[in-house]
Amino acid sequence: MTTLDGIVGLQPESLDRSDPEGVIALLARACSNTGRWGADDALGTLNHIDEETRAVAAGLVRRGRAFSLSLPFDANGPQNGWRRRTNPVHTMLDTGIDAERGIQGFPHGLGGADDVVAMPLQCSTQWDGLGHIFDHGIAYNGRRAGDVVTSAGDQVTGIETAAAHIAGRGVLLDVGRLLGDDDHGTGGELPDGFAITTDHLHACIEQQGPTARIGRGDVVLVRTGRLARARREGWGQYAGGPAPGLSITTAGWLHRSDIAAIATDTWGFEVRPNEFDDAFQPLHQVVIPHVGLYVGEMWDLDALAADCAEDGVFDFWLTAAPIPFTGAVGAPVNPLAVK
Amino acid sequence: MTTLDGIVGLQPESLDRSDPEGVIALLARACSNTGRWGADDALGTLNHIDEETRAVAAGLVRRGRAFSLSLPFDANGPQNGWRRRTNPVHTMLDTGIDAERGIQGFPHGLGGADDVVAMPLQCSTQWDGLGHIFDHGIAYNGRRAGDVVTSAGDQVTGIETAAAHIAGRGVLLDVGRLLGDDDHGTGGELPDGFAITTDHLHACIEQQGPTARIGRGDVVLVRTGRLARARREGWGQYAGGPAPGLSITTAGWLHRSDIAAIATDTWGFEVRPNEFDDAFQPLHQVVIPHVGLYVGEMWDLDALAADCAEDGVFDFWLTAAPIPFTGAVGAPVNPLAVK
Amino acid sequence: MTTLDGIVGLQPESLDRSDPEGVIALLARACSNTGRWGADDALGTLNHIDEETRAVAAGLVRRGRAFSLSLPFDANGPQNGWRRRTNPVHTMLDTGIDAERGIQGFPHGLGGADDVVAMPLQCSTQWDGLGHIFDHGIAYNGRRAGDVVTSAGDQVTGIETAAAHIAGRGVLLDVGRLLGDDDHGTGGELPDGFAITTDHLHACIEQQGPTARIGRGDVVLVRTGRLARARREGWGQYAGGPAPGLSITTAGWLHRSDIAAIATDTWGFEVRPNEFDDAFQPLHQVVIPHVGLYVGEMWDLDALAADCAEDGVFDFWLTAAPIPFTGAVGAPVNPLAVK
Amino acid sequence: MTTLDGIVGLQPESLDRSDPEGVIALLARACSNTGRWGADDALGTLNHIDEETRAVAAGLVRRGRAFSLSLPFDANGPQNGWRRRTNPVHTMLDTGIDAERGIQGFPHGLGGADDVVAMPLQCSTQWDGLGHIFDHGIAYNGRRAGDVVTSAGDQVTGIETAAAHIAGRGVLLDVGRLLGDDDHGTGGELPDGFAITTDHLHACIEQQGPTARIGRGDVVLVRTGRLARARREGWGQYAGGPAPGLSITTAGWLHRSDIAAIATDTWGFEVRPNEFDDAFQPLHQVVIPHVGLYVGEMWDLDALAADCAEDGVFDFWLTAAPIPFTGAVGAPVNPLAVK
Repeated sequence: MTTLDGIVGLQPESLDRSDPEGVIALLARACSNTGRWGADDALGTLNHIDEETRAVAAGLVRRGRAFSLSLPFDANGPQNGWRRRTNPVHTMLDTGIDAERGIQGFPHGLGGADDVVAMPLQCSTQWDGLGHIFDHGIAYNGRRAGDVVTSAGDQVTGIETAAAHIAGRGVLLDVGRLLGDDDHGTGGELPDGFAITTDHLHACIEQQGPTARIGRGDVVLVRTGRLARARREGWGQYAGGPAPGLSITTAGWLHRSDIAAIATDTWGFEVRPNEFDDAFQPLHQVVIPHVGLYVGEMWDLDALAADCAEDGVFDFWLTAAPIPFTGAVGAPVNPLAVK
Repeated sequence: MTTLDGIVGLQPESLDRSDPEGVIALLARACSNTGRWGADDALGTLNHIDEETRAVAAGLVRRGRAFSLSLPFDANGPQNGWRRRTNPVHTMLDTGIDAERGIQGFPHGLGGADDVVAMPLQCSTQWDGLGHIFDHGIAYNGRRAGDVVTSAGDQVTGIETAAAHIAGRGVLLDVGRLLGDDDHGTGGELPDGFAITTDHLHACIEQQGPTARIGRGDVVLVRTGRLARARREGWGQYAGGPAPGLSITTAGWLHRSDIAAIATDTWGFEVRPNEFDDAFQPLHQVVIPHVGLYVGEMWDLDALAADCAEDGVFDFWLTAAPIPFTGAVGAPVNPLAVK
Repeated sequence: MTTLDGIVGLQPESLDRSDPEGVIALLARACSNTGRWGADDALGTLNHIDEETRAVAAGLVRRGRAFSLSLPFDANGPQNGWRRRTNPVHTMLDTGIDAERGIQGFPHGLGGADDVVAMPLQCSTQWDGLGHIFDHGIAYNGRRAGDVVTSAGDQVTGIETAAAHIAGRGVLLDVGRLLGDDDHGTGGELPDGFAITTDHLHACIEQQGPTARIGRGDVVLVRTGRLARARREGWGQYAGGPAPGLSITTAGWLHRSDIAAIATDTWGFEVRPNEFDDAFQPLHQVVIPHVGLYVGEMWDLDALAADCAEDGVFDFWLTAAPIPFTGAVGAPVNPLAVK
Repeated sequence: MTTLDGIVGLQPESLDRSDPEGVIALLARACSNTGRWGADDALGTLNHIDEETRAVAAGLVRRGRAFSLSLPFDANGPQNGWRRRTNPVHTMLDTGIDAERGIQGFPHGLGGADDVVAMPLQCSTQWDGLGHIFDHGIAYNGRRAGDVVTSAGDQVTGIETAAAHIAGRGVLLDVGRLLGDDDHGTGGELPDGFAITTDHLHACIEQQGPTARIGRGDVVLVRTGRLARARREGWGQYAGGPAPGLSITTAGWLHRSDIAAIATDTWGFEVRPNEFDDAFQPLHQVVIPHVGLYVGEMWDLDALAADCAEDGVFDFWLTAAPIPFTGAVGAPVNPLAVK
C-alpha cells in the first residue's frame, strides 16, 4: 500500500496499480493548495505569477520572434464527437461571393462577410479552468462542486477570472526530443502510454541547460511529440485516446515547483492509458482541485521547439490569455511565445 | 466635388456629404496598399510589425502589470440579434452538480464539467479580418471578393494568417478623456456622432506626450468612452447603433502612419451616424480592402486608460492574438496590455 | 385559506393571491396523475390517446385541407435573449451563389446548398416535455427531478418518448374570438393579463357547438389572439412577457377532462402576470409534474381559427409529432391540422 | 451514346458509365417539370397533393396505430463530421439536478429545465428542399441558383413553403424485404451499391399487391434495409458512404408517376457508388432541380415495414411536415404514418 510518507517522491514502479483512489487521496493530501491563498481564492497557481516575475519575463524577448502555439480551429480538427465534443462548425452569415453579386443591400459599393461558430470550449488549443475537474464532489479550494459549477456555468472560478493573468515566463521541456524516436524528422515523438516522470523532467532540464531551469510562476510547456505524430498519421484517436504524458507520480513536482501552469501537445496532458488498472485522468483529479493548477492541452509546440533546439534557449515571454467566456470551465486560447 | 489633390488632408467640413461613393473612391486611391507587399500578401498592415519593433516593444514592460482588454463573453453582452448576431450562448455538457450527485460514471471519485458555445465571431471583443469588408466586390490586395470569401470561409486572408503576428507596441490615445464629458467619473465620454479627426488625434498625442507618439507597427487604441457609457446606461444600441468614432477623414492618417492596427471601445470603430447623408461604414470600405488595416472593435480600454492617466505612460507591450478559426473573417481576442 | 374541498371548482375570485405555494400544493393533490399509468410511465396524458380515439379522429378529415400551426423558425422570431433563449441562427454551409460560380468541386455540373442551425429547443412553436417543469424538486410521476433531468438531458421522459403518439382529434376553443376585441379584424384578441377560466372554456364550447365538445384524448387548442396582436405590433415582450392565458383555476378542468394535451398561441399558455402577488408560471407547476400534461406553446392558430369560424366546425385531425431530440425537455414541432 | 429517345426507359445495362454529364442532361430534358406549375411555382411535386387526394388518404386509417419514421436526434447519430455535418449537440440550460438543489431562483418551489441544440439541418431524418441541389447553376423551375440560395438562405423555395403540404397517402415499397438478404432477421437488407431499378419497383408493387399501387400525390417510401444494417453493425459510413438506393434509371419513373415525394432509409436516396465512373449524386441533379421532387433521407422505415409485412397493407396516412426554418434547403421532420 502506498503511504503518505512516500507519496511525494513516488516512483512509477512503486505505484499500487490496483488502488487509484488511495493513491489519489494521498497525493491530494500531499499536494494540496487548499486555503493557501485564502478561502476566497479563485486563481490557484496563477497566484504564482506576480508583476515582478512578469516584468522579468518580458526581458526574455531578444529577437522579437513570435510563435503561435495554437492549432487551427476548424472542422478538420482532432475531435470525433466523443462526449459531445465536435470540431468547431464555422459558417458564414455573408460572403464575398454574395458581395460581388451585389445582393447585400448596402449602399455605395460596400460589401461584407461575417461568420458564426458553434464549438465545445475544449475542442482545440485550450486551458482547463479550475472548475473543469472535481475530486469526490469537491472543487478547487475545498468548495462543493455543485456550489461552483451549475447549469449556469462556473460561478466562482470561471475562466474569466484568468483573463488578465497568464503572461510571464514560459519554459519548454522538450521531452519528446530528448527521449523520443525521431525517425520521421519531426523532432522526436514519444510513444503512446509513455509516462513522463519527475526523473525525466529533471533530465530534460539538465540536458537543456540553464534557460530550462524552472522557477515560481513559470508556465511549463512539455512537448511529447504526440501532435507531430498526429500531423503525420492523421488525428485518429488524438483527442481522447492513448498518448504519452505526465505520470501521476509528477504530482509532487507539479506542486512543489510553484509553477503557474503546465501545457502539453496532447489532448489530456497526462499519460494514457493511465497508470492504474482502472482509471480515468487521475492526475487531473489531483492537480486541478487540489493543486489549483492551470492545465493547457493541445498546444502546438513544434515550431517553437525547433527554434529552441536551434538556439539552445528554452525560455521566453509567453502570453496565453483565454477568451473570457463568463463561467466557462475551459476556453480556447492562442498562446504566443516571443523569443 | 472632392478631388484627389485634397483627399489626404481632407477636413470634415470639406466633405461632400452627398457623395460617399466619390469620396470613398478618392480615399481608396490615395490610401491604397494594394501590391505594396506583393501580389500574394495576406497580412496587410500586420507587415508593419517586424521582429525588431517587437523586440523593442518588449522593453516597455516596466512594472509587469497586465490588463485584459476583453469584454466578458456571455449572454449579457451587447448583441441584440441584428444581422443574426446574438450574444454567445454558453451551455454546460456536465456540471459540478452532476459530479457531486455521483451520476457521471467516472471511476475513483473523478468528476468533471465541460461546456460548449455558439456565437457570432464578431459578437464581442474582436478583430475584423481582411476578408470582412469589400469595396465594389474587391477584397484586400485587389482580389475579387468572391475569390476570397466563399461559403467555406476566407480562402486567402482568413484570421488564422494573423495568428502569430499581433504582438508589439500598443499606444493608447484617450480622446474620450481629452475631449469628452466626465460628469460620471468614467474617465470621459464622447457623445454619439462625435467624429474624431486627424486634428483630434494629433492633439491627443501632443497632450499625452512622448509615450503617445505613433510609429510604424504600432497598434493604436482609441478610447472614446462609449463603452463606459454603455456600462452606466445598459447596452441599448451599443452594438450597431450610434457611436463616437473615427472620421472618414482620418483614412489618410491611418494609411500614412504605418500603424499595424487600430482598435476602439465601440462596436464599429468609425463614427455613427456616418458623415454622409446615406452611408454605412464608409471608413471600413477604405481601410480594410485598400489599406489592409486590421481593425479591433469592442475593446475594453477603461482600466488601462485609468492606469495610463495615472502614470502618464501611454505605450505598453500588447499581445492580441486572435483565436485562429480557419477562414474566419473576424475572431474573438483577449488582448493583453502589459506595462 | 384555500382548502382541498374547494380547490377543484376554484374560482379566480376565491384565490388567495398571497399564497401561491399553498394553492399549488392543493391543486397538485387534487389533480395528481402520479401513478395512474404505473410507476414506470413516461407519457402522462398522452396515454389518453389510444388507437381507437386516433382511428375515429381520422374520420374528421372531410375536405382535406391542411393547416400548419407553426410559426416560421428564423432570426425574426419572438425571442430576445431572455434566459439565453435566442431566435434560431440559421446559416449556410454552401449556397447557390457558390454553386453558380462553380467553386464547389463537384463533378458534372452538380451544385448544392446545405445549412445548419443553432437554437433553443423552445424558441418557437413547441411542445413542453414532461421534464420541463418540477414542483419542489419533483418531476412527473413522483420522480426526483435530479434523477430525471441531468446535464445529459432527460433520462426518463425525454421528448423522444412522445415521437409516435401525438396524432388524434384536435379541438379549437377560440376564446379570443368569443371574448376578445376585434377592432383590427384579426379574429379577436384578449388583452394581456386576461385569465381564461373554466367558465370561459365552457361558454366557448357551448357557443361553438357540438364539434367543440371535449373528450378523452383530445388535443385542445386555445386561441387567445395574442399572436395576432404580436403580428400587428411587433414581437415586443411576446416571448416571456404579459399575455392572456389559462387561469390557475383551470387546473381541475385540465385534469378531469382527460385531454391529451393543450396548446395556445402564447409563449407560456397560462395568464401573465400570474394570478398571485408573487409567482412564476404556477399552472405549469401543477399540470406538468402532477397532471403529466403535454403543453404546446407559440402555436399559430389564426388561419385554422378563421376557417373554423367560417364553416362552424371546430374539430379536426391533428398530428403534432415533435422532432425526437433524445433527452430533450421540449422540442420544435410543426403541428398539422387537417379538416 | 445515350440518346433522348431511349432515356426514359433507360436500363442500367445501357448506361454509358463514362458520360454522367450527357446522361444527366438527357434525363433532365425528358423529366423536366420546369414551368409545369407556372413560372412562380416553388412547390414542385408537392403540387401533386391536393385536398381531394388528402381527404381520400385519411380513409386509410383503420386501426389508428401510429409509427414515427424518425431516427432519434442525438450525439450518437450517423454523422461523422464530413462536410461540416456533425450530429446534433444538445445541451441543457437548466436541469432537474439544479432544480432539486434549489438554486434556480424561482419562487414557490418551481423548478425548470430547458435546452438548446446546434445541428446541421440534414444531419438526421430530413427532407431535402428544392434549393438543396442545382444542375449547372440552375435551381428548380429554371431559376439561377444564385438568385435562389444566398448566404441568407433560400429566398424562393425555402422549406417553409412546404410547411402545410406534406400530408396524404404514403406507400411503402419494401425492396429490402423482396430482394435483400434476411440472414439477420431484420426484414431484409440490400447490399451497398445495389441499384434499385424501375423493374425492381414494379416487381415490388406487384408482389405487395393492390395497396402498393402508386398514384398521383403519393409519398413513396422505399425501404432498402441499409438502416437495419447500421443498427446491427454501427453507423460506420452510413452517412455519406456506400449504400443501396435508387438507380439513375428510375428518373423517368419518378417523374411520370406524379408522386409528391420519395423517401428512403439511406443517407442519400440514390445508389452509392453511383452508376458512373466518376459521379456524385447524379439522380439528385435530375430530380431536384428538374422534376422538383421532394426527397426524404434517413427515414426509419423498419417498424412500419414489419407491420405492413404482417397485415399485407402497404398504404397509410402520412404526415411529414418539416420544421419550417425560413430559407432552409432541408429540414428535420418526424414523419408519422398512421394505419
